Amino acid sequence: VGLITSPRNARVAHALALRTSAGRRETRRFLVEGPGAVREALGAGVVAELFRDPSVPGESADVAARAEGDGVPVLDVASRVLARLAATVSPRGPVAVCDPIDVAIDHLDPSRGVVAVLVEVRDPGNLGTILRTADASGAAGVVVTHGSVDVYNEKVVRASAGSLFHVPLVRGVHALDVVSSLRDRGCVLTAAVADGETDVFAAVAGEATAVFFGNEARGLAPDVLAQMDATVRVPMRGGAESLNLAAAAAVVLFELGRRRRGGG
Amino acid sequence: VGLITSPRNARVAHALALRTSAGRRETRRFLVEGPGAVREALGAGVVAELFRDPSVPGESADVAARAEGDGVPVLDVASRVLARLAATVSPRGPVAVCDPIDVAIDHLDPSRGVVAVLVEVRDPGNLGTILRTADASGAAGVVVTHGSVDVYNEKVVRASAGSLFHVPLVRGVHALDVVSSLRDRGCVLTAAVADGETDVFAAVAGEATAVFFGNEARGLAPDVLAQMDATVRVPMRGGAESLNLAAAAAVVLFELGRRRRGGG
Repeated sequence: VGLITSPRNARVAHALALRTSAGRRETRRFLVEGPGAVREALGAGVVAELFRDPSVPGESADVAARAEGDGVPVLDVASRVLARLAATVSPRGPVAVCDPIDVAIDHLDPSRGVVAVLVEVRDPGNLGTILRTADASGAAGVVVTHGSVDVYNEKVVRASAGSLFHVPLVRGVHALDVVSSLRDRGCVLTAAVADGETDVFAAVAGEATAVFFGNEARGLAPDVLAQMDATVRVPMRGGAESLNLAAAAAVVLFELGRRRRGGG
Repeated sequence: VGLITSPRNARVAHALALRTSAGRRETRRFLVEGPGAVREALGAGVVAELFRDPSVPGESADVAARAEGDGVPVLDVASRVLARLAATVSPRGPVAVCDPIDVAIDHLDPSRGVVAVLVEVRDPGNLGTILRTADASGAAGVVVTHGSVDVYNEKVVRASAGSLFHVPLVRGVHALDVVSSLRDRGCVLTAAVADGETDVFAAVAGEATAVFFGNEARGLAPDVLAQMDATVRVPMRGGAESLNLAAAAAVVLFELGRRRRGGG
């Protein structure tokens, strides 16, 4: 196979469809772009095929060589075809078609760390940032409920900075099913809400803790909140009424993570 | 004055120019939109004039009534003129022209809380989120150095969720001048960097602490880093190499803030 110069090429067209949520739903695959993220995807063993511009040297060429070494099909495409496949404005790095990495909820191990549950989270930047933060804080996994933004949205993938491939991820489940499942496995269910009863810096986090975060605008739905064992808040000083969701999650996940491990 | 229906109206044209950084530099004013943010701007006493669509009832009308009560000129504009003035896709709320709120660095009071210094921060969402987080954590102020994104960029204003009007803000200063100024005022200068010497959860924060954060991609410049008294890191678990800047700032500002106040 030589250089692919047309976006109507069958492999390119299949990949282009993955830039829409409908296309991703149909084939259960998603796109990852740039050398760093593609390297993480290769490490996770989920790259089905790789598109690269052979005129780009350096990292892009290194990643393509590694993919070939792993037995992943590498397709050479013209710059303007790569530009169509990529979401970023100046794409130079490769674009990978990846198989889904989400797992069933019973694959999470709450003895390994805090489980973060995101209920109807809508902003892709928030979701990607929270995946990255959950990974960095040592969380056991992230559950993204039905009604949230697609975890394979390109902005989520980009904001996760590779953490999508590190932290066990559950998607598409209903919040009340998450409640039953995690409770059955012995988790204490905690909601992080603006008017939580306990200051998160004084909270107790046991061996198995799940922390629920709600929608950016509406917060956590009353039927989910009613199922919680505890509620925590980030204490507000100054004039701010609340925190950005991803900032609140950073404070809560790091603090509950270290309390769980016995930190001060 | 009746309903303004043309974007070429002189007042509208003046306001429209503020949607560009060149226009903001020239007149030293900026735009704020939506009932919540405009209310904060009115509270801060910096609204020079207000544009509203008189056919929109509810919060927009309430805010316009308050502005009139405060003696702020309120101009009635057609929906399509408001749409031109607003950055959001479905504008209903009023748009305010505001006078700048930034202060000189010697107006900051480091005895009141941690001073956050953002050196060449480029992403408007990060900057706005950090302003909101700094406010919520009880920071004494935020310094945004020369070479950073414009603090009056519409995305910064929106992401700050009103905190732009609560937390003392310094802009346009050079990082090394910030170093001299804060050192002269007795601040311990701390950098938050990925390879910081001390875990932030074990750090000491004295009466007067300034914490420096660097650029999203390049981190803190070596000449600034060389001036620091201490460096702290957010401990990384899992597979993440780093945190999003705004997430890191959330963890660091809340932790140093509470350590400064004698929290565990």
